[in-house]
Amino acid sequence: MEERVRAAIRNAVLREPFARELGIELVFLEDGRSRVEMVYDPSRQDNIYGRAHGGAIFGLIDEAFETAAQSDGTVAVAMNVNVTYIASPDPGARLAAEAHEISKTKRTASYEIRLLDDRGRLIAVCQALAFRTGKPIPFL
Amino acid sequence: MEERVRAAIRNAVLREPFARELGIELVFLEDGRSRVEMVYDPSRQDNIYGRAHGGAIFGLIDEAFETAAQSDGTVAVAMNVNVTYIASPDPGARLAAEAHEISKTKRTASYEIRLLDDRGRLIAVCQALAFRTGKPIPFL
Amino acid sequence: MEERVRAAIRNAVLREPFARELGIELVFLEDGRSRVEMVYDPSRQDNIYGRAHGGAIFGLIDEAFETAAQSDGTVAVAMNVNVTYIASPDPGARLAAEAHEISKTKRTASYEIRLLDDRGRLIAVCQALAFRTGKPIPFL
Amino acid sequence: MEERVRAAIRNAVLREPFARELGIELVFLEDGRSRVEMVYDPSRQDNIYGRAHGGAIFGLIDEAFETAAQSDGTVAVAMNVNVTYIASPDPGARLAAEAHEISKTKRTASYEIRLLDDRGRLIAVCQALAFRTGKPIPFL
Repeated sequence: MEERVRAAIRNAVLREPFARELGIELVFLEDGRSRVEMVYDPSRQDNIYGRAHGGAIFGLIDEAFETAAQSDGTVAVAMNVNVTYIASPDPGARLAAEAHEISKTKRTASYEIRLLDDRGRLIAVCQALAFRTGKPIPFL
Repeated sequence: MEERVRAAIRNAVLREPFARELGIELVFLEDGRSRVEMVYDPSRQDNIYGRAHGGAIFGLIDEAFETAAQSDGTVAVAMNVNVTYIASPDPGARLAAEAHEISKTKRTASYEIRLLDDRGRLIAVCQALAFRTGKPIPFL
Repeated sequence: MEERVRAAIRNAVLREPFARELGIELVFLEDGRSRVEMVYDPSRQDNIYGRAHGGAIFGLIDEAFETAAQSDGTVAVAMNVNVTYIASPDPGARLAAEAHEISKTKRTASYEIRLLDDRGRLIAVCQALAFRTGKPIPFL
Repeated sequence: MEERVRAAIRNAVLREPFARELGIELVFLEDGRSRVEMVYDPSRQDNIYGRAHGGAIFGLIDEAFETAAQSDGTVAVAMNVNVTYIASPDPGARLAAEAHEISKTKRTASYEIRLLDDRGRLIAVCQALAFRTGKPIPFL
């Protein structure tokens, strides 16, 4: 992928409000592929049972989806996300979500995303579908 | 539903770390039904394009799912969620997610969740599936 | 909706190979809404356990989706379907799937579909997403 | 996996009404993995636009899911299936759906399924979730 696109997306993620709230870092970005990480912080991300909230898990998955989907330098918008929860991460675990593109047409693109903990245990899997607007990303 | 269950879930949500981060309030809880609300705060919930992050939208949806799924006083665990994004909310909009149970067996329950803004515009819809452990909720 | 569009879709379903295999009838079609029915025939539609095959159940759901999605007279193509199975129908039951549109933009439309048996019992629910090509349906 | 389980599932598929309607063959079955194939027959499987009906595509995917999910010799029941359609197969193409298990707990198991044509082109992808009853398959 173009280096200026990668740099632009990296910078956008550094400034992105929701990613900052969750403590998400973009650690890898290539054409149609992305890896993002965060440390699961129970004091901010737990649910009513003292487990990681589905929304926090989903937030990391969605960040992988979002970054992979913009990697060709045009704006893509999330249409549908399907998440299956497999296991609950341990407090303090470093979590990584990896997205990869499995298809791309003029107007749509689809992704598979896996979320693993730092022991390689599968936490959640996701299928996601984006609409491709065709417009260049605005902060290039 | 039992009043002590409703009170216990209300209290649990008040103390719930992720719900506090997003500013989520539980405003209605009945057997298999729930309504939660939050004000969409761009300074904390935006994505790289200055729109509400899919993870923030989903966080509210998941809270509706979670509370409705515990309303019979036993612990239910999220297995699968499918979210379709319809529209992007306006900054500062008060968002509401409503869950209702569409089926329940001994071990599973399924829900439909709708997220609307304060003008009644549909923002997202969700189908969600929970595993019912049968165990009483621990903080009763 | 336009009567000539309804007539064209009705005729197309009457000639549609897969609908004929399953014995599907289109019984109602309005703007963004459709109802299709079939009699569940164990001798042709069962799975290895003598229950209705998921593919037969889904075939009826998909027909409701397909017909509702073409009801504005332009070609729409299925992108994503999410099916949750609730109960198994009884042999010989008349099944009905109803689709209704919950959103429509220039390029996408989303639907909820419910499948019930003739006693009103919920068999399956579905969320479905279509891409709208904007082209008029060819057999008008 | 146990040979008598594989033989029992193979035999069950040979007699399975819906698989016979679609012309599905089970060509591979291992622990948590399965491959099924069928020739796409437009005269029986087309939709109103002369393309493969979503229900026919789904039927093959579901067969891969079903067979993989019974491969440990106990009965599993479909709870949720999420399909993303990527491309439309050519008339007469031999289609193959491969399922593999990505997680298994006492009561649930989840699968990814891919459907490809005989040129290796991706036609559809699927995430699927099964409930594990724990009961031995009855025709062993």
